[in-house]
Formats: sequence, structure tokens, C-alpha cells
Amino acid sequence: MRALELSDRDLSDLASEAARIAADYWASLPSRPAYPSTSGTETSRLFDRPWANEGRGRAVLDDFSAIAQHVRPCTGRFFGYVAGSGEPVGAIGDFLASVLNQNCTSWRSAPAAVSIERVVVGWLAEAVGCAGFAGSLCGGGSTANLMGLAMARESLLPANDDGARPGVVYASEQAHMSIAKAVSLLGLGRNNLRLLPVDASLRLRADAVRDAIAQDRRAGKTPLAIVASVGTVATGAIDPLHDLAQIAETEGLWLHVDGAFGVMAALAVPEKFDGLSLADSISLDAHKWLYQPIDCSCLLYRNRDAPRRAFSYSGDYVRIFNQDPEETFAFFDESIELTRRFRALKLWMSLQYHGRDAYREAIGRDLRHAELLAESVQSHPQLELLAPVPLSAVCFRHRTKNNEAILRRVIARGRVYLSNAMINGHFALRACFVNHRTTPQDVDEIIREVIAAADELND
Amino acid sequence: MRALELSDRDLSDLASEAARIAADYWASLPSRPAYPSTSGTETSRLFDRPWANEGRGRAVLDDFSAIAQHVRPCTGRFFGYVAGSGEPVGAIGDFLASVLNQNCTSWRSAPAAVSIERVVVGWLAEAVGCAGFAGSLCGGGSTANLMGLAMARESLLPANDDGARPGVVYASEQAHMSIAKAVSLLGLGRNNLRLLPVDASLRLRADAVRDAIAQDRRAGKTPLAIVASVGTVATGAIDPLHDLAQIAETEGLWLHVDGAFGVMAALAVPEKFDGLSLADSISLDAHKWLYQPIDCSCLLYRNRDAPRRAFSYSGDYVRIFNQDPEETFAFFDESIELTRRFRALKLWMSLQYHGRDAYREAIGRDLRHAELLAESVQSHPQLELLAPVPLSAVCFRHRTKNNEAILRRVIARGRVYLSNAMINGHFALRACFVNHRTTPQDVDEIIREVIAAADELND
Repeated sequence: MRALELSDRDLSDLASEAARIAADYWASLPSRPAYPSTSGTETSRLFDRPWANEGRGRAVLDDFSAIAQHVRPCTGRFFGYVAGSGEPVGAIGDFLASVLNQNCTSWRSAPAAVSIERVVVGWLAEAVGCAGFAGSLCGGGSTANLMGLAMARESLLPANDDGARPGVVYASEQAHMSIAKAVSLLGLGRNNLRLLPVDASLRLRADAVRDAIAQDRRAGKTPLAIVASVGTVATGAIDPLHDLAQIAETEGLWLHVDGAFGVMAALAVPEKFDGLSLADSISLDAHKWLYQPIDCSCLLYRNRDAPRRAFSYSGDYVRIFNQDPEETFAFFDESIELTRRFRALKLWMSLQYHGRDAYREAIGRDLRHAELLAESVQSHPQLELLAPVPLSAVCFRHRTKNNEAILRRVIARGRVYLSNAMINGHFALRACFVNHRTTPQDVDEIIREVIAAADELND
Repeated sequence: MRALELSDRDLSDLASEAARIAADYWASLPSRPAYPSTSGTETSRLFDRPWANEGRGRAVLDDFSAIAQHVRPCTGRFFGYVAGSGEPVGAIGDFLASVLNQNCTSWRSAPAAVSIERVVVGWLAEAVGCAGFAGSLCGGGSTANLMGLAMARESLLPANDDGARPGVVYASEQAHMSIAKAVSLLGLGRNNLRLLPVDASLRLRADAVRDAIAQDRRAGKTPLAIVASVGTVATGAIDPLHDLAQIAETEGLWLHVDGAFGVMAALAVPEKFDGLSLADSISLDAHKWLYQPIDCSCLLYRNRDAPRRAFSYSGDYVRIFNQDPEETFAFFDESIELTRRFRALKLWMSLQYHGRDAYREAIGRDLRHAELLAESVQSHPQLELLAPVPLSAVCFRHRTKNNEAILRRVIARGRVYLSNAMINGHFALRACFVNHRTTPQDVDEIIREVIAAADELND
């Protein structure tokens, strides 16, 4: 065979072997720890090697079990960060996307793939009550937030031609760090990002936004955009969408909703997201609360002119010959990406395999798991709930022990994994539920493990 | 079963079925057309449907054959753009990456996966003669170029805190459109991008860069960065790296190399890339000339301080407990991405499966295919070569017929696919070779098809 070529038979065997490995791995998840026992020394020792001249052939598949032992498994007992569960049908869709190897940059480049992406983006928009919004898939919430704010900048303080002028962005002090990163990257200056006070429920205070805008206008500054977090990464707080939309309208500002964590819950509890459709742009992460394998985010926007103003530059080599609206469609005119993976296929397969009702039910289950944990915390004399639980993140602490030490010990015990947050100056233990594998028994483990870890501490 | 759950048996069957579909598809590639017979009406009719409440179950796999019929197959006879071939072992690696569903944002979040990414980035750096460069994988060359120029900006005209000031970027008039897009997005202003004249070989003229810098300095402007294209997307021209590096050093500018198309050819013909290691940052696309499934790009950088200056913002919730240099490593400090797919696994598997020699050979074969086509064009009385062929892009035209009409007809005939470029005011037919499936017979088809298409035209 010529270099890099495999016979049909060898390829078929290799694919079958990979399918077997995948199925075995999924079946093994319930017995895997919440976090692996490993170290930097160990992962370097196992994997730091040169690229050899000679091929290893099928032996490369043997590495899988060592890799799997030294990564975080997506078990139902990993409650850290906002970590989706990697729904297997989605993973199979991802595989077939890599097999087709489409470049979803324009219909011309990947006809059915681009049409399918437009359709699934429509499903997502409709599922969160924003039917009619257009959008595109992208790699992560950070990119989606960056694109949303780029659209804000180019719509209100155009900078593409002559460079950025300072424009002020208003967000909650609980906003995700990707907002500051986007403001910086866009040349707006992080000092023009106002991270404003929140109310007792950790929601951005609309009056604080109004005051800050007025103060900036008096100081001769130019307000540009409001970012609503829906919900915040620490506690899932849902900023007051109606009030913020009204301010944005009155003041002529862009309203971007960072819904990376929470927006997909609108499928199950739409009443919590009333006002969402007043946004100009909305980011959401299907690899979080739609359980899809990483990466699969989406930016939705009300008006397709905005991304085109921000991102449309065409070269001769992407010149298109005809005028059919589907055939001349190009995502590269509406995104910072040019080459784009066929991310829509996993959504196409996974969302249809299970159906919309099943997703609604799974999200509802995550919400109930969070309530269950919050109730258990509140009924436990040694524990204290540190914030309301509007979605599926639960922040709590042990009343008397060192919670940072408890967290380290919980993680070392390996039965459940929690992360942390700072809530009103307290170090919080934090559990987040965006995992279709989690059972009520897994939720019960959290309290047991925290108390067991606390009891182990010498104080 | 609970919503979204499948039995181990059903999952195993589904994965096996997907493996069979993948193997059949790969086996079918030689018999597929270079471009599908489809239309926007047809892809909308087939795929535009609502997300149903009820699940379709395994029937979703049946969609694959319709999708495959209406997308561009990665045959050896697709020569448009710079379209890699989607090496199957890489696709299998991508599948297993989705199965593991790691978030490669930090070692803590994905231990072995992050260590493996650091190792394969080292392989790429070493393969292109830049051992010691650090880097990270990303989704596309556009993102890599954006990050390279963001590092330039933050190193020389810091804007993260107070906002962007105009800084001038110098590049070839043949530079990729992602450079203009990046300059715009970063708030530098596209009017501060100098797209400068090229020499007879379509390489950026160093004297033009020197003159433009001097002129800008006289006008009180601040030169910031030089972008070298290696090679240009239209013809593969390799800008003069040594000269540009010397100017960058003398003038105190950042040197970014856009190597999305060509840099990986340094594995086969290192002598063409002499001076590459003088760059401050280098983008490359492993989904182009390392044949990997989309997406798989890489940004390399000489000095890790630069990305940290540009991109490092940490939130409480990613707080890290220890001081081990491997365990505290976080890609989110060196990238615009936070959530990051385990892109390294496909490289890990595919590059080791075949070995470095096989990749060197495959790239060498692509280079010879381009020479073969260039020679055939030059020896054909009706055809004219429009540019030198330093890498694997060949631009040519029919001397007497309408080349745009020829291109449409070639594509409609479906046996080979070419794209186009504008070279010195001429509409060029363009073939690019970055495909391990292409055979010398496929290359011969190009001339036959162009002449057949030309003969069909009424003139």
C-alpha cells in the first residue's frame, strides 16, 4: 500500500475494534472513580515520547485503556464545573462527522451539512423560545460570547475599518471570565467592563446597571452593551431579562445573554427564561445542558445583519457562482470561523434519536437533583446552603470545618467530584447537575462524602 | 430505561453499526463523484424538519446515506481550496475523543488528554524545525491567526486593560482573508493593515515592507507586526522568511507566520522553510497537510509569556490547588478557548499509526503531483501556467476559452473538482494537492477534464 493508505479490510477491522472499545468504555463508566488517581509525573511518563519514524499500526488502539485510566470519566458522580456527560449517540454522530470530514463553511463547500446545521440551529432557537433567531454552532461559550460582543461593537461602535473606540459593557460581578476576555480581545479595554453588584439572589441589579450607565454618560463615556448571565456559573442565578432588555432598549444598547450554562433549561422550565427573546444575541452550550460531546456551542442572533457587519469578508477563492439563497449561504460570513467542523451531525442524530420529550425529561431530572441536594443540605445540621438554586448548581458549606480541606479530601476519596466557588466571601462546595447519567443515589453520595471527609479532618 | 439512557447492548450495537457505515463509506470513496449532484432545494427538502417530541431511535443512522450523497466526498479527485482528506485513523481517534469527552482546558480537568496535547504540539513544532516552541491546538487557521495577532498586540501595544490603539500590520496582498478579519476583530482597524506588493513569484517584497514601515513611522503611526504567508492560499508562495524576520527584529515588530496551508510541508522539504524558527508565532492546519479530520489547527509560539499576557484570566472556579508544573498547566491561559475538545487524540493515533516517514512520503507525493500537473500544463499548447509552484497549488488557465465557464463545466461534469483564484488579473483554474488518496491517474484527469470542458463550450 502507499503511505497512509489502509486496505478496506484493515479499516473495517480498525473501526470495529474502536466501536468495541467505545462500548466497553461506556459500559465501564459506573465502575470508574469520579476522578482518576494520577499525577503530572505519571501522565508525562506514560505519554511523553517522540514521534517515531516507524508506524505502530493497530497498537495505537492499545493506548486507549491507559488514556482512559488517566482522564476524568464522565460518570454520574462528577459534579464539578458545568460538565456535560457526552451522550453516546452524540459521540457516534461526531464519529460520522469525522468520517464525512465536511468543511461547513458554506453550502457550496458542504451542502447537506450546512443545511443540517441551519436546521438544528433552528431547533435550538425554537427550544429556548426564540423561534426566528438565526445562528451558528461554534466551539465553546467563550467563542460564542466573543462573537456576540463583536456583533455589539460593530453594530454600535463600528471598529472593523478604523479601530476600536472605548465602549462600556455592563455585566454582573458573577459574570463568566469569558466576558472580560472578550472585551479585552475586541480592543474595548477591560477597564470599560463594569462588573456590577448583585441582589440577595446573586442576580445583576437592574438599578445598578441604570446608575452605572448614567454615571458613564455623565463622564462622557459611551455605553455599548449589557451582558445578562443566564445563569451565572457559580450559582445559576438568572439575571432579570425583562428589566435588562428594557434598559438596553431605552439606552440603545446591545443585549447579549450568556446562556452557556443555563439557557437550554428553557426546554423544561420556560417560565424561568421569560424575556429571553428580547435579547440581541444568546450563547448556549449544547455540550453542557444538552449532554453533547465537546465541542458544541451555539450563538443565536435576532438579526442576521449584525454578524454580517461584524464578520463578512470574502476572498476570491470562495467566490460563489449563483443566487439561490440556500446555495449562496456561507457561515463564514456570520462567524469568526472559516473552516468549521460538522458539529451539527451529533445534534441531528442525538436529538432525534431520543426526541425532544426525552431531553425535556432529562433536564427536568437534573433540576430535581439540584433541589434534592439543596433540601438535604438544608436539613443537615452541619451544612449550610450558601445561595438560592434557580437552576442546577448548588453552593453550600460545612458550618464548622475548613471547606477547602473538605473539598481536597472529597476529591481524593474519588467517589464524587465537587468544585468550588466564592459566595459572599465564603469558600463554597459546589455541585452542578448537567449529566444524564446521574441518579438520585449519586446525589445522596454527595452529602455522605462531604460529611465523611469532614469527619476525617483533624481539627 | 430513563430518558437518554441506552442499554449497554443497544449502545454496543449502535457503535458497531456506525463502524460498519464508516467502513462502507470509506470503501465507497473511489466510486463517488468529486462533487455531489444536489441543490439547495434538495438539501432543504431532505433535511428541513422540526425536532419531534418522539425519538426516532436507530432510524437516525439511516439518514447517513442521504447525507453522504449530498455532501462533498473526500475523494482523491477533489482539488479545490486547501481541502485535506480526513485520514480514517484520525477519524477513529476523533470518535474515541468524543467517547472520552474530555475538556482539555487544564491538566486538572483532563489529565492525560492535556499531557498528550502538549506532547503532540511538541511533535508538530519539531517536525517543522521549531523544536522548543510551545503551542496549543485550535479549531482553524482563522482562530490561530487571530491568536497570533492578539499576542502581537498585547506584547507591543497592550490593549487588554485600556482598549486598542491603532497599530499597523504588514502582509502580502496575497494574504489570507483571516488576517484582515483578525485585525478588525482585535480593534486595530483594517485600514491599518497594509496589503503590500509581491514579486514575480507572488512573494511579499521585503523592500515594500521596509518602505511601508518607514512611511508609517513618518506619518506618526505605530508599526506592530509582519505577517508572512507560508504559503499563500492561491499559489503557495512562501514569503521571504529571513528578510522579514530581519526587518521585524530591526524594527521591533512581531513576526507571525500564517502557515495554515503550507508549513507542514517542512516535514518533507525543510529547505523551503529556512528561517521559520525566527518567527514569534506560527499557525498551521493539521486538517490540511496532515490530512486530519476537521478541526485540527495549531498555533505555535516561541515564548509562552506572550499568550499568557494576551489570554490569561482566571476565575475562582478554576482555582488550582498545587504547584506541580504539569498539574497546574492550563491551556485556557494560552488560548481564547476555555472549553477545548480533545483534538490531540486523532493526531496521537494517526501520526503514530502511520509513523513520521509515511507522513513525509505522503507530503512528498502531493508535491510531486503538483509538479506533474504543472509540467502537463506547460507542455499543453492550449494551457498556460499562471504562477510558480513552490508547494502544491497549481494555477493555470486555458489560453483562449472563458475559464470561468470551463470551471463551471468541470464541476458539473463531476469527475474532478477545481477551484479558482485571480492571478495578475487573470481568472485562474486552481488545483491543490493535500490529499493522501490522490493518485497520479487522478492528476492526469485534471487536464483531460479541463480540455473536455473547454471543448464543450460554444465559442
